[in-house]
Amino acid sequence: MSSDLPALVLVKPQLGENIGKAARAMLNFGLTEMRIVDPRDGWPNPAAGPTAAGADIVLEKAAVYASTAEAVADCAHVYATTVRKRGMTKPVLDPVEAAAEMQLATGKSAILFGPERSGLEVADVELARKIITVPINPEFGSLNLAQAVILMAYELSRTGQMTVQPTREKEPSSPAPQSELDQLYDHLEGALEQTGYFYPPDRAPATKITLRNMLTKPGWTSEEIRTLRGVISALENPHPRKKP
Amino acid sequence: MSSDLPALVLVKPQLGENIGKAARAMLNFGLTEMRIVDPRDGWPNPAAGPTAAGADIVLEKAAVYASTAEAVADCAHVYATTVRKRGMTKPVLDPVEAAAEMQLATGKSAILFGPERSGLEVADVELARKIITVPINPEFGSLNLAQAVILMAYELSRTGQMTVQPTREKEPSSPAPQSELDQLYDHLEGALEQTGYFYPPDRAPATKITLRNMLTKPGWTSEEIRTLRGVISALENPHPRKKP
Repeated sequence: MSSDLPALVLVKPQLGENIGKAARAMLNFGLTEMRIVDPRDGWPNPAAGPTAAGADIVLEKAAVYASTAEAVADCAHVYATTVRKRGMTKPVLDPVEAAAEMQLATGKSAILFGPERSGLEVADVELARKIITVPINPEFGSLNLAQAVILMAYELSRTGQMTVQPTREKEPSSPAPQSELDQLYDHLEGALEQTGYFYPPDRAPATKITLRNMLTKPGWTSEEIRTLRGVISALENPHPRKKP
Repeated sequence: MSSDLPALVLVKPQLGENIGKAARAMLNFGLTEMRIVDPRDGWPNPAAGPTAAGADIVLEKAAVYASTAEAVADCAHVYATTVRKRGMTKPVLDPVEAAAEMQLATGKSAILFGPERSGLEVADVELARKIITVPINPEFGSLNLAQAVILMAYELSRTGQMTVQPTREKEPSSPAPQSELDQLYDHLEGALEQTGYFYPPDRAPATKITLRNMLTKPGWTSEEIRTLRGVISALENPHPRKKP
């Protein structure tokens, strides 16, 4: 199966049973790339196998990461699934729109799913360029992890994601991998730390979220990010030259 | 919520937990009418409540029937969900097509879901006018009951089934309720029993399935069924009259 299919990232899942159910839901619609961030009960988890109901290949291939940032470091398009509005300025898509976008995109896509009880934390949503929200009964929104996964997997399948496509060259306009975006953000934050920008200290967290969102939104290319980092470097370490 | 929304019919469900999960999946997308046919562990089932996760209203309103035929007796459009091909001649729809059709239909719709392990029996599929099949990974098709329910509920919601519509008068072209179709079939079978038609006896079951499917396919109106029953009556009890 093509490595161009999206990776589904389970962030801090609690029960092994639910990881198994998610694997089964994925394989039902041809998705095999699961990434797991900091699972509560460690990995491998013997509770996952039985509920996977035969989707063992997904569990065996699953990669485990210590942080969400590491899990999506190679991804050009990161989506966060959430039902709650968080007052953020990111675009919100429904599963149909998101699936269509991922099918057309160049570069790897990742979809983040939060822990069973609490959903994704703000810090995880920040990593994403866009949000996916399932249009659910406003009076009873209670999707569990495997249900959220299967609806997304179903839509990805429906929009033809499963059809074999010729491998495309990575186009120059593809957004940079998330790792480059992270480095850009770290670079900027580090540079600003030196400047007293984050003052007063109690406002710093909110300011950092705002910055992170600003950097995440455009989908910059690698070249653009390099350019921007050059700008930051220049600003933090000025080397003024005399006019000729 | 409008009573025009489809009823979801769980045929011989085994585990109360799965009935609860199906209720939760339904209410997530605004469906509240569950019908249960001959549940293995009786009803009410205390195992259903916890997995319903708050969708108690669906469980409380659930009606229990001894047979699938009774459960859909008032329905004009009966759909059977199945992943297996059964060599039957009924039309096969995917969830998108089925949801669109149900939204436009006049008269009550019902969707049959089979038991967890085995799926719907042939006798249940026979009752349906059409089949719904989720387009699933051909190498790993393993949808559980709640997953099948949520995909169907999601599509019904997406196609605007949840939007409040003015109550329509039942149009004369609406297919007759299933109970009239059952009576027609019984009438025909009874009439044929008298004729030696079902001979040799070992072929009778297959012949009856064929007949049942033929009668189910057209979606006759009540008036048409009355007409046809008049035809059968006339054939089985001829009262020849002299020409004037």
